[in-house]
Amino acid sequence: MRPLSSFFPVLDWGRRYDRHALTGDLVAAVIVTIMLIPQSLAYALLAGMPPEAGIYASIAPIILYALFGTSRALAVGPVAVVSLMTAAAVGEIAAQGTAGYVAAALTLAMLSGLMLLALGLFRLGAFANFLSHPVIAGFITASGILIAASQLRHVLGIPGGGHTLPQIAASLWRNLPEINLPTLVIGGGSIAFLFWVRSGLKPLLRRAGLGPRAADIGARTGPVLAIAASILAVVLFDLDAHGVAIVGDVPRSLPPLTLPSFSPDLISQLFVPALLISIIGFVESISVARTLAAKKRQRIDPDQELIGLGAANLGAAFTGGFPVTGGFARSVVNRDAGAETPAAGAYTAVGLALAALFLTPLIHDLPKATLAATIIVAVLSLVDLSILRRAWSFSRADFGAVVTTIALTLLIGVEAGVMAGVLVSILIHLYKTSRPHMAVVGRVPGTEHYRNVLRHEVETQPHVLALRVDESLYFPNTHFLEDRLAELIAERPALTDVVLMFPAVNDIDLSALESLEAINARLRDADLRLHLSEVKGPVMDRLERSHFLDELTGGVFLSHHAATRALARPGNGGNDGVEEHGLYVI
Amino acid sequence: MRPLSSFFPVLDWGRRYDRHALTGDLVAAVIVTIMLIPQSLAYALLAGMPPEAGIYASIAPIILYALFGTSRALAVGPVAVVSLMTAAAVGEIAAQGTAGYVAAALTLAMLSGLMLLALGLFRLGAFANFLSHPVIAGFITASGILIAASQLRHVLGIPGGGHTLPQIAASLWRNLPEINLPTLVIGGGSIAFLFWVRSGLKPLLRRAGLGPRAADIGARTGPVLAIAASILAVVLFDLDAHGVAIVGDVPRSLPPLTLPSFSPDLISQLFVPALLISIIGFVESISVARTLAAKKRQRIDPDQELIGLGAANLGAAFTGGFPVTGGFARSVVNRDAGAETPAAGAYTAVGLALAALFLTPLIHDLPKATLAATIIVAVLSLVDLSILRRAWSFSRADFGAVVTTIALTLLIGVEAGVMAGVLVSILIHLYKTSRPHMAVVGRVPGTEHYRNVLRHEVETQPHVLALRVDESLYFPNTHFLEDRLAELIAERPALTDVVLMFPAVNDIDLSALESLEAINARLRDADLRLHLSEVKGPVMDRLERSHFLDELTGGVFLSHHAATRALARPGNGGNDGVEEHGLYVI
Repeated sequence: MRPLSSFFPVLDWGRRYDRHALTGDLVAAVIVTIMLIPQSLAYALLAGMPPEAGIYASIAPIILYALFGTSRALAVGPVAVVSLMTAAAVGEIAAQGTAGYVAAALTLAMLSGLMLLALGLFRLGAFANFLSHPVIAGFITASGILIAASQLRHVLGIPGGGHTLPQIAASLWRNLPEINLPTLVIGGGSIAFLFWVRSGLKPLLRRAGLGPRAADIGARTGPVLAIAASILAVVLFDLDAHGVAIVGDVPRSLPPLTLPSFSPDLISQLFVPALLISIIGFVESISVARTLAAKKRQRIDPDQELIGLGAANLGAAFTGGFPVTGGFARSVVNRDAGAETPAAGAYTAVGLALAALFLTPLIHDLPKATLAATIIVAVLSLVDLSILRRAWSFSRADFGAVVTTIALTLLIGVEAGVMAGVLVSILIHLYKTSRPHMAVVGRVPGTEHYRNVLRHEVETQPHVLALRVDESLYFPNTHFLEDRLAELIAERPALTDVVLMFPAVNDIDLSALESLEAINARLRDADLRLHLSEVKGPVMDRLERSHFLDELTGGVFLSHHAATRALARPGNGGNDGVEEHGLYVI
Repeated sequence: MRPLSSFFPVLDWGRRYDRHALTGDLVAAVIVTIMLIPQSLAYALLAGMPPEAGIYASIAPIILYALFGTSRALAVGPVAVVSLMTAAAVGEIAAQGTAGYVAAALTLAMLSGLMLLALGLFRLGAFANFLSHPVIAGFITASGILIAASQLRHVLGIPGGGHTLPQIAASLWRNLPEINLPTLVIGGGSIAFLFWVRSGLKPLLRRAGLGPRAADIGARTGPVLAIAASILAVVLFDLDAHGVAIVGDVPRSLPPLTLPSFSPDLISQLFVPALLISIIGFVESISVARTLAAKKRQRIDPDQELIGLGAANLGAAFTGGFPVTGGFARSVVNRDAGAETPAAGAYTAVGLALAALFLTPLIHDLPKATLAATIIVAVLSLVDLSILRRAWSFSRADFGAVVTTIALTLLIGVEAGVMAGVLVSILIHLYKTSRPHMAVVGRVPGTEHYRNVLRHEVETQPHVLALRVDESLYFPNTHFLEDRLAELIAERPALTDVVLMFPAVNDIDLSALESLEAINARLRDADLRLHLSEVKGPVMDRLERSHFLDELTGGVFLSHHAATRALARPGNGGNDGVEEHGLYVI
């Protein structure tokens, strides 16, 4: 049985909590709270939700993850890609700004939470692994492009929408005449300022005498400065009256208790999007958690992470939020600010709750263009087309998967992109393993080593064919072995013995067993004997569960050299040559 | 470039054709023609086609396969499972007995022919391998049950229909009161007679002095005898007037030239069924061809077989037939009757053409119950539930695939059964390879051999962790390796060096490369060095296309023993211990 603390990691670190940890956690919480306010507002905008939802979505989830998650530094809340996917999924069901939209987002968070919990309780975290790295990289890059494109209209001050690149581009083009100059000045200025902050502010702070870590944190205040400055500009020049869209009234409230819709119709419509959001969110979060944990030799339990993220999303669903996951930027800030334990997250939650109660009037005049600018600058760091070059140079198969994912995400949408990426990756794997590498081997003269006859100068005998199979045998490739053997045998009229060398055969399924039985029977009909050499322990165990070894016309040899010695006799033909019948147990 | 004779195998054997081969082929053709007449009529009934279509479907396809196919003994024509699938697919589109039904069957044959040709020309025969043996065995067994059940109504003389077992059973039950006694006597009598022929006639013929081969062929005339006797019974007792359904008027004609429909609607409706029929037909045919070829050490070229079967189906589509493939029963008769070359098939075609011209009036009074009886007796030999026991004892995964296939074929239909079988097989494979076997290894004392520490008494060192990975590394299992390593490292505080042993890693994809890079970076952050040992040639080639080897903190060792020697020093910690950096090229 698993100990209780494996379900509630808080029981583990909570017991050792001391004053040193408390100080570190409190300092980190203050810094992270300040960072999270603009980020939360921006991702709420991206998800099509009211701004306060972004703050609500950062409070309960942070606390719940702190209770159930295994990462010490992960900060959970709204993140760019999941917010985009939320907008795409919920946008199919209701119009932004309606009560139906908010209700659907809550339901999406609930479904995603339940799925993550279920995957975690059944310990099925491995399912997320069917998203290959290149597919994820391609997807994140394409999502970054989509997000940046979708926010351009806020910077230009024009209406518009769309969930694919062609839709967004067409909408931008159509509405371009309505461009609002004050909005463009604020939005463009914010983008320029934020880019400068990234490259210029940190060196400036270092020269001003700050330490590297403090300079790093100082440079991350860029969004806060941009927001303060643009609020000031709106108030001073009455830009609201000049057509600059502002955030407007935000309720002063703790996160409200909300009830997601349980309508079966809505649930069935949101099922697939929720699954994809869960998997993408989990994959993103766990890769952040692993990266952060590795430096401290801490361990991340994927199944427990699923439970932590599931609880966080359920929390978001019942407190006015929307789907959340562990984000890279917020987690790094958290760690760099000196967070010692998950309690830092809980303190951050308190900070955000205070902000939701007392600071929301301050953001009434915040221009949406500034929020869009922070999103654009943040997501452009996600866009990394170098994956294309990397994949191309490493393998054409991976390249195909990446290109498919990027193209479909941009042209058809995020859901199609993810699903196509998974499908293409699996098909490529099946295709590759369906035509395994096999080598006819011969003896390196004077040694007990056997190598590919095509790559090396080796000795072979006309009456023995030795074929090394470099792949597990399973249904897609069994006929390939049969056909290859038939071809090799047809070329060798003097043949009396065939040895299959299995050092790299890790598994055999029933198809492969039947194929081996067929090969054995066909060789027997053609007066040829079949031998095996260097069979692995688990494969041998499996073969012993069938009648194959009883029917095998030849022997099973510990080493390939033993097979060669047994068969290498002048006039060899009878069965008496096979003296050695050892098993190679690993 | 491929020689012309590889596209037209006839150019190869045709050149060596002599009097001996001619005699053998002619004798076989006469025997096979007699066998094929009842079989062709019966499968036409099963496919829901007019009886003469069965004979037409055996003429052009036989000739076209003889020109393009590679098997010397394969006989192509209507077979049970493909006829059932035809009835299921076409039955969705038109009612049996209508012109639309026949037209749809022609279109289905054309689509199937084009798909087979395309797969052959693009050399994609390997696609058929995604049907695993257990899935095929389950599917054939379930199809046999469905076919036998579907023919019961003809034996009982009642109306009915249905394409799933529950539908067929319900229809039988509903119509049972309408049972026709004379039909039941003829049908039941035929079944009893045919079963007796299978078991009793051959020994009788042997005792009567016939040789084993002649007795075998004699025993196969059972269906012809049953048909002759039941026609006689109908004529003598005027059973037609007593409600016994008979075949009725069959036109006396050579195969007509027919044009399939090119309606896009029809084509899109039949696309998936045509693909499944093509694959099932190909899989059945090639397994027959391989079995027949093996005894003579002949080779079957799967891609050329696709072309041969594609041509045969196109022939069926344009001469009044329906989808065809290579059948086991007819091929065995053909071979046992002494066929020497594919020309025997051509002579059989001539015999069937003569039968279509002159013998069709004779079958006017043939009861459908007798044809149904021949089908039932023939397909019950396909039903082999032993695959369930076999799969259960060999592996639970294979068992799951078989049960799913059988259940879905019986309950939902042939198409759902095949597709679910393929899907389940692939998922099982992905699941298995996503959690590969890995073993921490240690040295067998006094040797250079390294074995699993859990299975053997071996020596290990506290500062070195050696992990053997027994699977190719690709996206579903890379995180598994990361997590397992993190776990092992967390347990070993004294660790300084990690060696990954790769003798059974046959391939590495980009996800796995990135995972190895992440592992290397994380270990470096934790002051651990990463080494590789016994990396295979192709994997090494691939790693060299990336920067991984430049960044690797440790070495790559020819043998695992070399790694152990290099690392096994007191106070080992620096990088200078790694002197050997050889590559293991296979």
